[in-house]
Amino acid sequence: MPDDAKSVTAAIVIIGNEILSGRTQDMNVQFLATRLNELGVQLREVRVVADIEDAVVKAVNECRAEYDYLFTTGGIGPTHDDITSHCLAKAFGVRNVLNDEAKAVLVDHYAGGELNEARLRMAHTPEGATLIENPISKAPGYQIGNVFVLAGVPVIMQAMFESLRHRLVGGAPVRSLTISVALPEGRLARPLGVIQGEFTDVEIGSYPFFRAGVVGCSLVLRSDSEARLAVAGDRVRRMIRDAGGEPVEDHE
Amino acid sequence: MPDDAKSVTAAIVIIGNEILSGRTQDMNVQFLATRLNELGVQLREVRVVADIEDAVVKAVNECRAEYDYLFTTGGIGPTHDDITSHCLAKAFGVRNVLNDEAKAVLVDHYAGGELNEARLRMAHTPEGATLIENPISKAPGYQIGNVFVLAGVPVIMQAMFESLRHRLVGGAPVRSLTISVALPEGRLARPLGVIQGEFTDVEIGSYPFFRAGVVGCSLVLRSDSEARLAVAGDRVRRMIRDAGGEPVEDHE
Repeated sequence: MPDDAKSVTAAIVIIGNEILSGRTQDMNVQFLATRLNELGVQLREVRVVADIEDAVVKAVNECRAEYDYLFTTGGIGPTHDDITSHCLAKAFGVRNVLNDEAKAVLVDHYAGGELNEARLRMAHTPEGATLIENPISKAPGYQIGNVFVLAGVPVIMQAMFESLRHRLVGGAPVRSLTISVALPEGRLARPLGVIQGEFTDVEIGSYPFFRAGVVGCSLVLRSDSEARLAVAGDRVRRMIRDAGGEPVEDHE
Repeated sequence: MPDDAKSVTAAIVIIGNEILSGRTQDMNVQFLATRLNELGVQLREVRVVADIEDAVVKAVNECRAEYDYLFTTGGIGPTHDDITSHCLAKAFGVRNVLNDEAKAVLVDHYAGGELNEARLRMAHTPEGATLIENPISKAPGYQIGNVFVLAGVPVIMQAMFESLRHRLVGGAPVRSLTISVALPEGRLARPLGVIQGEFTDVEIGSYPFFRAGVVGCSLVLRSDSEARLAVAGDRVRRMIRDAGGEPVEDHE
């Protein structure tokens, strides 16, 4: 894991037939994106793949090779369609085994005959995995290599993330500044492009909006240098006023 | 484009720094997933990539080769960070050119000097593209090969989809049946696995929920055979009653 590198990167692989069928709206990407950014980890790619072994193994292996960290969500429950641990073991070329520590957590949680064979699936991890605590429903997530395997249910995923965040080593955090204006982006595009050309260390995005009949845009500036962000922000505000608009700061 | 194949598949590539930074919650996947399914097109993968040329070109080329249809969202506006058309041209190995038909639409929409050079970016498409009408803000999307290039703003993306849907040739539509029960999925996992083993032509997913203190699960059955879906549904209802639960049909 890098700790001196300037950019620390991450990807998310969502194992989710329910997202692909349209049944469920994903609620995990925005949470992880925001939390990772606070830790100086930049989310660079998200993939949603079907509950199909080949698709999961391919996405996991490509993303864990390309980014510093990979987070998976979904598919770690007790039912036949929970294939994540099986796929992760295959991706890492190890066996999917009963994890004694995970089993102890489940034995403690499920009284008497409640810990059936199906639930014991949730105590299986790829060999060599380190558990991630689940304070909500107990069945743990785990880390193997640079991959963190989390639940798909948002409240459980979020609790697991709080359990693992101390393991992440971030880079320079990216600061952002959002300046909105009630002018269409087409009016600002040329001078904005000039400013972007001058500030190669500040990434400038333009996002149009249509609210209550007002056509406008939000200009989002991102950089790991607070000083450069401030200078670029001043230039953008001046550009907006020159175009006859009034810059409005979004406090996020 | 296949028209006799049993499954017609699709992917979405979201060109979206604003999703990856956590600033914006994606609202396009669920809409496209639902509409495509109605047309007999199965969404199989979604990727969210950064506004970086290499990342966009790679995702587009991989997904257009692997699936019958690819939809991209975002990055077709007038500003410097709108790089989708440039990337699509590169992915297809053609030039990104001024499209006369698109220019005519913009000339008609923008009066006098309003059609500036930046806005003319929105009239550029990869050579050989066919336009997709945008009834909201006029600047069109387009189709090239099996790729449909759409806006990122949901209301515009949705209107563009309505403009293009007649071009899609779907396969057998997938029917679904959702049966929920106030029992934890770990109690049903074993018999559910047995049913899945018997019904290889019905895909059964189990999705736990935690609502108002009730732990339960929704069992989602999907198949292109209405008859098999009905038989599998009966088996699932019986299984739930055998476990002491009461099956509740979700009407979606």
